[in-house]
Amino acid sequence: MTRPSRRPAAAGGARTGRRAGDSGTREAILAAGRAQFAEHGYDGATIRAIAAAAGVDPALVHHFYGTKERLFAAAMQLPVVPSEVITAALAEGGRGPGESAGEHLVRSALTVWESDLVRGAFVALLRSALTSDRAAAMLREFLTEAILGPVANLVDGGDPATTPFRASLIASQMVGLALTRYVLRFEPVAAASADELAAAIGPAIDRYLAGDIKNP
Amino acid sequence: MTRPSRRPAAAGGARTGRRAGDSGTREAILAAGRAQFAEHGYDGATIRAIAAAAGVDPALVHHFYGTKERLFAAAMQLPVVPSEVITAALAEGGRGPGESAGEHLVRSALTVWESDLVRGAFVALLRSALTSDRAAAMLREFLTEAILGPVANLVDGGDPATTPFRASLIASQMVGLALTRYVLRFEPVAAASADELAAAIGPAIDRYLAGDIKNP
Repeated sequence: MTRPSRRPAAAGGARTGRRAGDSGTREAILAAGRAQFAEHGYDGATIRAIAAAAGVDPALVHHFYGTKERLFAAAMQLPVVPSEVITAALAEGGRGPGESAGEHLVRSALTVWESDLVRGAFVALLRSALTSDRAAAMLREFLTEAILGPVANLVDGGDPATTPFRASLIASQMVGLALTRYVLRFEPVAAASADELAAAIGPAIDRYLAGDIKNP
Repeated sequence: MTRPSRRPAAAGGARTGRRAGDSGTREAILAAGRAQFAEHGYDGATIRAIAAAAGVDPALVHHFYGTKERLFAAAMQLPVVPSEVITAALAEGGRGPGESAGEHLVRSALTVWESDLVRGAFVALLRSALTSDRAAAMLREFLTEAILGPVANLVDGGDPATTPFRASLIASQMVGLALTRYVLRFEPVAAASADELAAAIGPAIDRYLAGDIKNP
């Protein structure tokens, strides 16, 4: 497995004095992140506490990982950053002619999930959420942040108070699609192409995004 | 392996010498069922083989459990028989005024899932499917049969060839709803009432049931 270089050009020579080079520092931050996320959950873990546990300056964590979401994705070995994938999927410019946001989201999600890198990771995340309340909480907090932002951008013509409900309804259909296709392998959903699933499920997502949804 | 035929006490008090009466016979059938389902899957297990393993006549299995689905539900300690719940939910007579089939299905499913008896069992089933390919296959085969029949009855005005796709799309949304509400506990889906979820998700189910769905 090849990975991108661990040494960003700009990293200069930030050292902790205990470890040699960027690679060790990055690993220490990831290990501290995993431990802090596991102990305090996604919301409870802070960049500051993770930096302290890794023995580095918080600025260095930001330098290497940018945001908490990106650090989480790296610590959990997620090969993508969900909010970035979702934002890209929902961007109007990225859609094909006549393609709705819902269709595009379904197609994009399937493409990401079915890349060699992601496939196992996604099922592993679901599995850990099903076997541990703590892992479920972590995944929930993480996905809430990852999905809410991009969805909020799309419903800003409507009532923004409905955004969390819309986001969790979308999550319910997308998580269910993943479970049905990859774990239960229900036919013909398991064998259908991304285009076929986008046509079948996209309109449901569009309704959750922009249809008449009454807030609970 | 065959054992001496075992008849129910009601049929004349036959004994094996090890177990007394109906209760022991029922337990022997359930144990044989669990073993056969685990070894051969839902589709592969036959009433005949289960009866042979339990050392009873197949007619006795039918007498106690009726159908393979009912035997499976009992062996897995499911407190309900899914196809019966779904059939009842989709029956026009059982719906409230102005209530669509999709709304009624969502409301009924939530009621069943949230009965004290079912709640843990459902999550346990999902968990076993996520951790074992064999359990996933068993759940898939079982749900396929449980959902396909009732759904086929509703789309018989349309193209019956689309029934399996419609059924698996409905499964994707319903399984996703359960996972989002009970395992991930995504808000506000987790806290919403059955009525609120029926209003939000019901139309998506109606579209999968009767809308324009193109077969893969």
